[in-house]
Amino acid sequence: MLSSPSGAGKSTLSRLLLEKDDNISMSVSTTTRAPRPGEVDGKDYNFVAQDDFDALVAQDGFLEHATVFEHSYGTPAAPVEEALKHGKDVLFDIDWQGTQLLDQKVHEDLVKVFILPPSKEELEKRLKTRAQDSDEVVAKRMSKANSEISHWAEYDYVIVNEDLQKAETELFTILKSERMKRFRQSGLASFVGDLTKD
Amino acid sequence: MLSSPSGAGKSTLSRLLLEKDDNISMSVSTTTRAPRPGEVDGKDYNFVAQDDFDALVAQDGFLEHATVFEHSYGTPAAPVEEALKHGKDVLFDIDWQGTQLLDQKVHEDLVKVFILPPSKEELEKRLKTRAQDSDEVVAKRMSKANSEISHWAEYDYVIVNEDLQKAETELFTILKSERMKRFRQSGLASFVGDLTKD
Repeated sequence: MLSSPSGAGKSTLSRLLLEKDDNISMSVSTTTRAPRPGEVDGKDYNFVAQDDFDALVAQDGFLEHATVFEHSYGTPAAPVEEALKHGKDVLFDIDWQGTQLLDQKVHEDLVKVFILPPSKEELEKRLKTRAQDSDEVVAKRMSKANSEISHWAEYDYVIVNEDLQKAETELFTILKSERMKRFRQSGLASFVGDLTKD
Repeated sequence: MLSSPSGAGKSTLSRLLLEKDDNISMSVSTTTRAPRPGEVDGKDYNFVAQDDFDALVAQDGFLEHATVFEHSYGTPAAPVEEALKHGKDVLFDIDWQGTQLLDQKVHEDLVKVFILPPSKEELEKRLKTRAQDSDEVVAKRMSKANSEISHWAEYDYVIVNEDLQKAETELFTILKSERMKRFRQSGLASFVGDLTKD
């Protein structure tokens, strides 16, 4: 799980992780909000009507779902279960609400990383560069950023993204280290059996 | 905590970690057994008489202590507390018994890494190359190795030491990653306070 306020560099870091590591795929969230210019259905989000969203909720088809700013967001269960079945990792890019809900479902196997911006000034600057957003939306987003940041202490790891290359290295270090966790190494039990048999 | 059966490469990996990382120091265990040829008092172990050992136990001067093969071993508390007070990490090289006891004292902050040999044949070969040991001692050590290995599932991380350079990289990856854990990054709370203040 990579969480952060908008403007902390999460999307860039997610893209680098997906490009450079063959064993991880992105969980694409489903939402009822309208696509922004440039957003691709099925890649950035699965864009659906409220009725379709509600039908998936009724079928227990989401690992977690929530409503933020009058729009619904959810993590579809099927692609995640399929990836894990094949020993692949899954990258989640959702907010603290979704993280808490997901944590209740897959606690032991969830690695939670929080990305912080280097300063308040830098965060404000990054949030203002999206030309298509109104002042009201930017103000809402700053407020949401502060609310998101307030949940930093619920995460396992924290990366302060001052230098992108350094933040990327730190993210890969966490990924590699977590893959060395004993419970994630399949085949260890039979390897140890061979080591100790008479 | 680095644990492993004798002959899995733990001593070499410990030495590399201490040489290459300035922020970690070794916890030197105290023992009542006699020094082996080449062992240095205060470096390999603190060699003490049984009476002195018992006096330290009585003063609560050990983080953990146990008796193995009729000799007493313990981890002195004072050097560890001193290192942690100065924000330094401490490397422990003790067996599964000591690990379990230490885990009860410092659970959240203890990172437990288990080193496995690449094969039973390689382990046997390595245990037999210590010329000063009698057959009886080697047999005892093989039995102790199997007993030690049987506790692999109590550790957080497992490294199979087939290639020393790869094992070293993996060990440093775990160290760096664990240092990025949120609760180990001092100063984060005030940094976040500055990020979110009006």
